[in-house]
Amino acid sequence: MDYRVEKDTIGEIKVPSEKYWGAQTQRSKQNFPIGDEKMPKEVIEGFAILKKSAAGANFELGLLEEKKADAIEYAADQILTGTLEEHFPLVVWQTGSGTQSNMNVNEVMAYVGNQWLEEQGSELRLHPNDDVNKSQSSNDTYPTAMHIASVRKVEDVVIPALTQLKNTLQEKMEAFNDIVKIGRTHLQDATPLTLGQEVSGWHRMLVKTEAMLQESTTYVKELAIGGTAVGTGLNAHQDFSEKVVTKINEVTEKNFLSAPNKFHALTSHDELVHVHGALKALAADLMKIANDVRWLASGPRCGIGEITIPANEPGSSIMPGKVNPTQSEAVTMVAAQVMGNDATIGFAASQGNFELNVFKPVIAYNFLQSAQLLADSMLSFDERCVSGMEPNHEQIEKYLTDSLMLVTALNPHIGYENAAKIAKTAFEKDQTLKETAVELGHLTAEQFDEYVDPKAMTKPNS
Amino acid sequence: MDYRVEKDTIGEIKVPSEKYWGAQTQRSKQNFPIGDEKMPKEVIEGFAILKKSAAGANFELGLLEEKKADAIEYAADQILTGTLEEHFPLVVWQTGSGTQSNMNVNEVMAYVGNQWLEEQGSELRLHPNDDVNKSQSSNDTYPTAMHIASVRKVEDVVIPALTQLKNTLQEKMEAFNDIVKIGRTHLQDATPLTLGQEVSGWHRMLVKTEAMLQESTTYVKELAIGGTAVGTGLNAHQDFSEKVVTKINEVTEKNFLSAPNKFHALTSHDELVHVHGALKALAADLMKIANDVRWLASGPRCGIGEITIPANEPGSSIMPGKVNPTQSEAVTMVAAQVMGNDATIGFAASQGNFELNVFKPVIAYNFLQSAQLLADSMLSFDERCVSGMEPNHEQIEKYLTDSLMLVTALNPHIGYENAAKIAKTAFEKDQTLKETAVELGHLTAEQFDEYVDPKAMTKPNS
Amino acid sequence: MDYRVEKDTIGEIKVPSEKYWGAQTQRSKQNFPIGDEKMPKEVIEGFAILKKSAAGANFELGLLEEKKADAIEYAADQILTGTLEEHFPLVVWQTGSGTQSNMNVNEVMAYVGNQWLEEQGSELRLHPNDDVNKSQSSNDTYPTAMHIASVRKVEDVVIPALTQLKNTLQEKMEAFNDIVKIGRTHLQDATPLTLGQEVSGWHRMLVKTEAMLQESTTYVKELAIGGTAVGTGLNAHQDFSEKVVTKINEVTEKNFLSAPNKFHALTSHDELVHVHGALKALAADLMKIANDVRWLASGPRCGIGEITIPANEPGSSIMPGKVNPTQSEAVTMVAAQVMGNDATIGFAASQGNFELNVFKPVIAYNFLQSAQLLADSMLSFDERCVSGMEPNHEQIEKYLTDSLMLVTALNPHIGYENAAKIAKTAFEKDQTLKETAVELGHLTAEQFDEYVDPKAMTKPNS
Amino acid sequence: MDYRVEKDTIGEIKVPSEKYWGAQTQRSKQNFPIGDEKMPKEVIEGFAILKKSAAGANFELGLLEEKKADAIEYAADQILTGTLEEHFPLVVWQTGSGTQSNMNVNEVMAYVGNQWLEEQGSELRLHPNDDVNKSQSSNDTYPTAMHIASVRKVEDVVIPALTQLKNTLQEKMEAFNDIVKIGRTHLQDATPLTLGQEVSGWHRMLVKTEAMLQESTTYVKELAIGGTAVGTGLNAHQDFSEKVVTKINEVTEKNFLSAPNKFHALTSHDELVHVHGALKALAADLMKIANDVRWLASGPRCGIGEITIPANEPGSSIMPGKVNPTQSEAVTMVAAQVMGNDATIGFAASQGNFELNVFKPVIAYNFLQSAQLLADSMLSFDERCVSGMEPNHEQIEKYLTDSLMLVTALNPHIGYENAAKIAKTAFEKDQTLKETAVELGHLTAEQFDEYVDPKAMTKPNS
Repeated sequence: MDYRVEKDTIGEIKVPSEKYWGAQTQRSKQNFPIGDEKMPKEVIEGFAILKKSAAGANFELGLLEEKKADAIEYAADQILTGTLEEHFPLVVWQTGSGTQSNMNVNEVMAYVGNQWLEEQGSELRLHPNDDVNKSQSSNDTYPTAMHIASVRKVEDVVIPALTQLKNTLQEKMEAFNDIVKIGRTHLQDATPLTLGQEVSGWHRMLVKTEAMLQESTTYVKELAIGGTAVGTGLNAHQDFSEKVVTKINEVTEKNFLSAPNKFHALTSHDELVHVHGALKALAADLMKIANDVRWLASGPRCGIGEITIPANEPGSSIMPGKVNPTQSEAVTMVAAQVMGNDATIGFAASQGNFELNVFKPVIAYNFLQSAQLLADSMLSFDERCVSGMEPNHEQIEKYLTDSLMLVTALNPHIGYENAAKIAKTAFEKDQTLKETAVELGHLTAEQFDEYVDPKAMTKPNS
Repeated sequence: MDYRVEKDTIGEIKVPSEKYWGAQTQRSKQNFPIGDEKMPKEVIEGFAILKKSAAGANFELGLLEEKKADAIEYAADQILTGTLEEHFPLVVWQTGSGTQSNMNVNEVMAYVGNQWLEEQGSELRLHPNDDVNKSQSSNDTYPTAMHIASVRKVEDVVIPALTQLKNTLQEKMEAFNDIVKIGRTHLQDATPLTLGQEVSGWHRMLVKTEAMLQESTTYVKELAIGGTAVGTGLNAHQDFSEKVVTKINEVTEKNFLSAPNKFHALTSHDELVHVHGALKALAADLMKIANDVRWLASGPRCGIGEITIPANEPGSSIMPGKVNPTQSEAVTMVAAQVMGNDATIGFAASQGNFELNVFKPVIAYNFLQSAQLLADSMLSFDERCVSGMEPNHEQIEKYLTDSLMLVTALNPHIGYENAAKIAKTAFEKDQTLKETAVELGHLTAEQFDEYVDPKAMTKPNS
Repeated sequence: MDYRVEKDTIGEIKVPSEKYWGAQTQRSKQNFPIGDEKMPKEVIEGFAILKKSAAGANFELGLLEEKKADAIEYAADQILTGTLEEHFPLVVWQTGSGTQSNMNVNEVMAYVGNQWLEEQGSELRLHPNDDVNKSQSSNDTYPTAMHIASVRKVEDVVIPALTQLKNTLQEKMEAFNDIVKIGRTHLQDATPLTLGQEVSGWHRMLVKTEAMLQESTTYVKELAIGGTAVGTGLNAHQDFSEKVVTKINEVTEKNFLSAPNKFHALTSHDELVHVHGALKALAADLMKIANDVRWLASGPRCGIGEITIPANEPGSSIMPGKVNPTQSEAVTMVAAQVMGNDATIGFAASQGNFELNVFKPVIAYNFLQSAQLLADSMLSFDERCVSGMEPNHEQIEKYLTDSLMLVTALNPHIGYENAAKIAKTAFEKDQTLKETAVELGHLTAEQFDEYVDPKAMTKPNS
Repeated sequence: MDYRVEKDTIGEIKVPSEKYWGAQTQRSKQNFPIGDEKMPKEVIEGFAILKKSAAGANFELGLLEEKKADAIEYAADQILTGTLEEHFPLVVWQTGSGTQSNMNVNEVMAYVGNQWLEEQGSELRLHPNDDVNKSQSSNDTYPTAMHIASVRKVEDVVIPALTQLKNTLQEKMEAFNDIVKIGRTHLQDATPLTLGQEVSGWHRMLVKTEAMLQESTTYVKELAIGGTAVGTGLNAHQDFSEKVVTKINEVTEKNFLSAPNKFHALTSHDELVHVHGALKALAADLMKIANDVRWLASGPRCGIGEITIPANEPGSSIMPGKVNPTQSEAVTMVAAQVMGNDATIGFAASQGNFELNVFKPVIAYNFLQSAQLLADSMLSFDERCVSGMEPNHEQIEKYLTDSLMLVTALNPHIGYENAAKIAKTAFEKDQTLKETAVELGHLTAEQFDEYVDPKAMTKPNS
């Protein structure tokens, strides 16, 4: 294997010739042989956007030569094309400030930028710290990159997926609006509702969590950049932060802000805890929707079976012809993962000390994993399950007719206690409500038919 | 012991004569001898507010005699005085819909209302189901009472406590604004900041979490009332929900709304998951503040010792004269509790099926516990610790002078690598930065004094 | 209100005359107005057992007058009768070492012991620190009391309850052993098993978690006593620890040990995390059992309905005659609580620093709550639900006949793919497996009857 | 791209020519485009070990031709060499039974085995279901593979790493045994101990958690194999399970058992919850050790600074010469991850229904991630931090001399209250304990020197 020698303030170190990183990246790679969870590529992209914007700001402030700024922009754009992934080998389980990934970005960008400068015939050369990291510290760049990554992930990945599923639910809700079916509370037969109403509850979950996500994400839009090492902004120009943020907004087409208090921005991750609380609310809702879907589709002959869902694959390696609600299962496993990720994020966010919280990479990793998994599983669930969901009219009708809870409609006419007597008697004698009601003398068959109208029971009185 | 006989649809049961509850409460008491965590009194109060409002609405809709409505209002007001606590004996670990606590309220209110009707010479008598529960179901009343309780707790208890602590932090932040001290990142000496800046990071945490709490609480203001058994509103008048909510707003002086989708309101608790996410963010922040306070106050002679905090009690049963940061300890234990409560709430919220989530009491219990503990501990921490926090000038000055990280101010003048050499040499030779810098020939003593100005290092360049 | 004046090293303080506690308790009461979760009484009892044993040891070592030892024993016994509960007013949210509750015990025991000495005509008087706390520190007594409390709770409360439920399951498992029913995997119809086999899976859960609990509890039997302030045993005699433990074993009839390393005993709570992991495993199992029970009992007409469970109370305030699986609901809410408590305990256990972990009270509180709730809910579930569980033969038979998954018995005869074809065709044409099998020509009706024998399908081949 | 056409009971599907998988794998790949967390390779290896053993057992039972058994063994061995990784493309977020990964293994093994059969000139061909999966179901094979993977990971990866760190701690504990230093409780100065004693507390943590892990792992050694689809063993020979387990033990050199109750084995994962509780206990302990290390090494000039740890890399991209405790940071981030994984596993384990728990892949993924990260981070922490940890004698000595808590040694001589007075006066007047003690007249300078002997204070009295 071919090496070149790089050095940093600790000394010399060998780096594989074909890799663009430098001494500090190499050192981290050797010092942290822990797991294989890579620093999320979204964070690396967040860094690229930031470094490009910082270079522009430094140039405008007269702190960086134009050619160097151009080289940095060029390198950032190369990262954003996604072709340099192999040059970011570091894992999550490194220093808790993410310094090593910041340096990884600085080093790769200096390398790529210097190649470009050379091609351009320039004599200038980028230094990872003095140029690419100019006016910056890991302590403000890492949380900035993490916020850029998180906001993009929520707004550009989670919310579109949520919207797609929400829209399908809205179609189903409308399509099923006239199908009266039995309700179930405590898993026990209850009063009727329409299948459309049942789906509307799921739909509303997505409407609410979408709003929660959008609103809570605004807190994440405050960026640490400009705080440098401890939040004071030492070695950065006082206009640097605002200029960088303006440029970030140009690149991302978002509305980020310079965090009004940088000491907070380096030490607290309350915003990510809060948004992940909304992701957890979404996970809890999806768990409920996916469970309802699989229970309603349970059977085909020994379960509830009120709906059918697409059969996407053979369900069993031993039971021929078995079809399972596998999309629901993927969703519910994702929900379980998000619950745990939420615990990790809360724990990590609580462990800051003095001017820094050094649990940033584990927060970023868990946050982005939750967001990606929720988005992907919503899309898959939508396309391979919810879209193909259809009512099983025969079964729905059968249950509706059999149910004892239609008796509730009699409360206003004969009182709760008499109604209870009818239901219990019908159950014990295994007969219909109507026969029992008439038998017990509480009302005539005609009155029964008038009062007990399942369709009417799906609405309040007017 | 003296008993009276009550009955419900299951049959007769003995109730202690001096208790106001009825058959269903008694049955629950006997059927759930589990723990001694009572249904939170805030939920009972939420029910009282709701029942009073429902009676008013039923009367206006012509569904309840005025005298009965008056009796219900009277009973509700009695509950709200707090004198009837002994009549609500049920525990959290009952039916997951909270039906039994709804019936406990219905029964006690019927009893108290009937006493009043008797005193008034009226012949009318309240029935727990047919009158007090009129147009309602446990399935819409319990979540309504839980939302009323949660909103009141956050807005009237948590936020005022948070505001008090926030204001004290603001005072400290201003008072300490000229005290330059060493910063610490990764627990290692870093560049300086002012003590006021350090406190401003804490202050900002409370500003942000206050906003998160306020905003996320709006989602909880949607009330289930009017949904009755499964969300359809069966047996309620179509105007009932809006009328009840209007009356609830009169009583509470809040801005509750009738939930636009009742199927959601009975089955999803995404809003409480979301607000508790904000409470968890607050807990994470408080953990960090309380930890910083105790570390800064550590010592008195073998720790960091940059601040002093009040000595409220003897710290040790064996070590004489020991003083411990006990208020910080209470806060951090509360934070640990809130982390766990958050896991419980997320789990519980995910477990709904069909038309109902039957984990409501455990959600209410954990939510209200978190809120109360956070509020109480913020007040105590404020009054017995933060208010009395004072800088230890001598120690702060000593560290500032000793620190090697002032070298960072040299970066723009001599570059990162030369600056690093100075810091490492000074450390190895155990000498000052200044002697070392001059010795290594990077700059003169005068230049050093000009460039390395700790006070100036607490700000960006202009 | 009547007061007396007490004092400690901080100064004088007023204490209500009728309370037995002293200055430090009073100070804690005033300094921690946080929540109303009292220090668990089991911990106070653990302290009483410890203090009594310590007095005996100190006497034997010639460090305490016999009469004083007697007075301390007397006071401890009074606490153990349970009549002094009102004198232990402190909350969990105090100092994280539990020092204040140790002092509360020391103060109350000195008070009660001094009354007794006075009655005995002795001139001797107990000092809370110098006598009751002799050779001890809060730092070794609190974890000792916590371990005594935890071991007693698991062994004397949780395991007997678990055993009772386990035995009922064994009875049911045997009683239902010949009832062949359809199996369900992924909520979808699967191959048959007996109801007894189904219950045997639940039974085995309790067998395994019982063993886990018993084994893991042995780690908690190591006691910190003898470590005093930081683990060194300063101010205690070198034989003190062993002597105290011997006496604790006499009182408790357990087999506690003196922890071989006291530094660990003060700073790590790995044993409680581990045992609570077993409690969480139990909670997860109970969640599954309780869910199975309520799903199998779902209906009565629109669910699975293979078993019936006792109707203990009216299920609905609006739906007459409704019966809900409320015991299952209490169990599953308890399971949700235990999941959260586990998160709190893990968090708290990870936060020790140097010679002490100051999250002890929150650990004790959560551990004991989980244990009590699991025990109580198992007993209630056993007595009010599982014991009365009965098969619904008609429904079981119906499903068994209808199921398509009996086709699996054909795999060895005609191969997985042909069998799958039969199942799918039968489903599509809504006909029986047998007709379809014959129609498709894979085998004769006689062969079908020979191969597809549900009873035989509940066992491996011989 | 080049394809071949494969088919399953759903129909035909195109598979890339160079991949060895079949129709069901391809279908899963297309149906679950969720995240990129692959089914852990340890689970695939567990499957290979199982399939090989099952083939042997089937052959011995006369159910499989010898040549086919050989082909299956050959294919399994190929997987175990690690060269086939690219043929296992499925993600965790698939069906919750892991059926698709079982089929992936069956398909790849059939493919590889068939190539071998062809090379051997045999006419026989393996069928994924009828041969490779013979006598098996996903429902018993997946948990079997998961248990094999988990036991191997804990015993062969976690425990050796733990042992290595434990041994280093033992060396340090012995090396530092004569270094007397100040203790700290509540972060406040306390009585002295030796640095060796401090380290011994950490050492003991690893001794205890090692025992917990070993003991709790025994429960995981029960294997589901033989249960087939629902636990009854349908379509398997009654001796199959025992034979397979014997062969698994030959391959793995472990002592697995056939689970005595297969219904449990398919539906409950209590054992993994329990072992992960031990992993969480280990994580909590490591958090404490890593925190102690970084706090003791804090500074170098403005912290505690009692020890030095290796400087492995530049600590800051802006602060020259900064060295950070990055190995501690990786460990504590891993601990945070394990806390969250524990929540996920508990949640997932609680969600079984009827004859199956369909959260198996998410359990396996989280369990194996925790185990790997703990093992890797212990090794890295050992090699790059703990091994190089050295005392900073000067600083240790300085604190010891300054501390006020040496006053505790006076308790037995002058009582707690007088001792407290000395400590408080010395603190207020900023003078030494000795001067103050003499000044206050409690004892002579000679007595002070006799009684206050820090070295003697690190032991109990004799």
